[in-house]
Amino acid sequence: MRGVVMHAPGDVRVEQREDPRIVEPTDAVIRIAATCICGSDLWPYRGIEKLRGPTPMGHEYIGVVTEIGPEVSTLKVGDFVVGSFFASDNTCEICRAGYQSRCVHNIPIGMIGTQAEQARIPLADGTLVVVPATPTPEQIPHLLAASDVLGTGWFAAVAAEAGPGKTVAVVGDGAVGLLAVLAAGQLGADRVVVMSRHADRQALARKFGATDIVAERGDAGVARIKELTGGLGAHSVVEAVGTQESMEQAIRSTRPGGHVGYVGVSHDVALDGMELFFSGVHLHGGPAPVRRFLPELIDLILRGDIHPGEVFDRTLPLDEAAEGYRAMDQRRATKVLLTL
Amino acid sequence: MRGVVMHAPGDVRVEQREDPRIVEPTDAVIRIAATCICGSDLWPYRGIEKLRGPTPMGHEYIGVVTEIGPEVSTLKVGDFVVGSFFASDNTCEICRAGYQSRCVHNIPIGMIGTQAEQARIPLADGTLVVVPATPTPEQIPHLLAASDVLGTGWFAAVAAEAGPGKTVAVVGDGAVGLLAVLAAGQLGADRVVVMSRHADRQALARKFGATDIVAERGDAGVARIKELTGGLGAHSVVEAVGTQESMEQAIRSTRPGGHVGYVGVSHDVALDGMELFFSGVHLHGGPAPVRRFLPELIDLILRGDIHPGEVFDRTLPLDEAAEGYRAMDQRRATKVLLTL
Repeated sequence: MRGVVMHAPGDVRVEQREDPRIVEPTDAVIRIAATCICGSDLWPYRGIEKLRGPTPMGHEYIGVVTEIGPEVSTLKVGDFVVGSFFASDNTCEICRAGYQSRCVHNIPIGMIGTQAEQARIPLADGTLVVVPATPTPEQIPHLLAASDVLGTGWFAAVAAEAGPGKTVAVVGDGAVGLLAVLAAGQLGADRVVVMSRHADRQALARKFGATDIVAERGDAGVARIKELTGGLGAHSVVEAVGTQESMEQAIRSTRPGGHVGYVGVSHDVALDGMELFFSGVHLHGGPAPVRRFLPELIDLILRGDIHPGEVFDRTLPLDEAAEGYRAMDQRRATKVLLTL
Repeated sequence: MRGVVMHAPGDVRVEQREDPRIVEPTDAVIRIAATCICGSDLWPYRGIEKLRGPTPMGHEYIGVVTEIGPEVSTLKVGDFVVGSFFASDNTCEICRAGYQSRCVHNIPIGMIGTQAEQARIPLADGTLVVVPATPTPEQIPHLLAASDVLGTGWFAAVAAEAGPGKTVAVVGDGAVGLLAVLAAGQLGADRVVVMSRHADRQALARKFGATDIVAERGDAGVARIKELTGGLGAHSVVEAVGTQESMEQAIRSTRPGGHVGYVGVSHDVALDGMELFFSGVHLHGGPAPVRRFLPELIDLILRGDIHPGEVFDRTLPLDEAAEGYRAMDQRRATKVLLTL
């Protein structure tokens, strides 16, 4: 089969990879219907995360089950499924508490690489959620978004305890930040402020339910959030970037007793203990347990209540994945969908 | 009046201070019935926090109202009251959300110094809670504990979401840690593990409801907590020390999705972003909003349900405060009560 392999920073190729097959009795093999490029794929692309040799890429996927292992009991060949970026048994104590991304048997799908024609999905019963009807072509991008960016933005909004009566601020206007805006609105927030300097992303944020835009960054951005909230700071702040500056901006924009939900992978971040202590905020985040939210998100998408696939502003065939990486790296695209 | 003044690290004196008087119409003056020395008083005593000249000390207090300002409406002369270490209006949006220690008008009582015969308490209506009956001598240490160490330990246990079905681990066997043990038990935790290497503190922890003792520290302590929790880590961990090591020990002892409640003032702590991200824990803490819990704590004490004053293992007259500081600094005492 064909699949994306990163050889070095900036060097992404579509090449022949071995066809996946059932290895463990709990595996399934799926034919990928659509996949995409993640903001986190840019970390190795930019040389910030090291590669250990040529690496198959991709961890977002929807597709059709083509083969199941002998112990798979809830799926059948032909099922249309959505999974997320960690395989999880969905039965251990950590999964049952809603933290499937930290399942005691978790397997990162990034190690498998779903920017490809097919993929082996471990712990298939726990990992894959069946879409009750074959989706229409219009539903494909929305369901694909659920696999990571929507699920991650949703988790961030939940971690920030977005809800009725709350003002939610979102730091980061990438795909995850934009979908955290959508999530905050769905969760009933009174007011959703997105921190963004890009007109196109501001427009999409408005469409997703943002009520206010703050173009300032850093201390000026924090001051603006305080101005909008009677000097107190937001109740809930989503951090969807993963830098020192964005974490500080998020914590400082939150009122004492408020909640920061952070999902930007925290590269080179060190939180000052004294500042955090006196901030009095709640801090929660990490790799999003997308599996927890998938049934609900699929339902909202099939009902037409949400359209998260609008974050894809470029669609390319898998074979042109290299151009997709370039476009995202150069910020010519927010998020690129790859068709098969 | 007489009061404790710190002149330099290690140099604590009881000297004549000016009698307090009503300054703002919302003030009350109280005659201190009992006060004590806090673990945080040891930071400047040890030269870790800088002093700017001679500094009145103390922020824990119970006493009798002797004078009220013209705008004080809920207190009267003769009331026996308990306060905590921040004056708060108890009416602002932050107070109403339960974060009185971060009240928009908060005033640190440490600036006033309650290791003294009398004290002016600002925002008296919001800050002071009336004890419905004059306490017995036996109740005095328990009520005094509510002013800070009990309230802080209680907040830590609440921040760690201690409760039924949970295993709670407590890092730190000082007065606050020991009272977090008591709080975790009162909040219904199934199992309360205290990390302690001191026989006397272990014994008191047992009395307060600890079900397990872990004497190991650092990585070995974390490994022991994991062993006790099926490899997963505790659901809830209280951090009551405030060092890099104790924060790391707390975070690493917590299962993914679990809760860390931290109340040790975080000196020279820097949290690694990647480690925190992948820990998947909830982190909440800071200066405890003791005022939130005072009515409930006073009620539990008056009913005889809890005996938090047992953390005081030394009682001295105010005039011997210097010996109290020495004893706590040299770990000859856990917590020293000062009588008047």
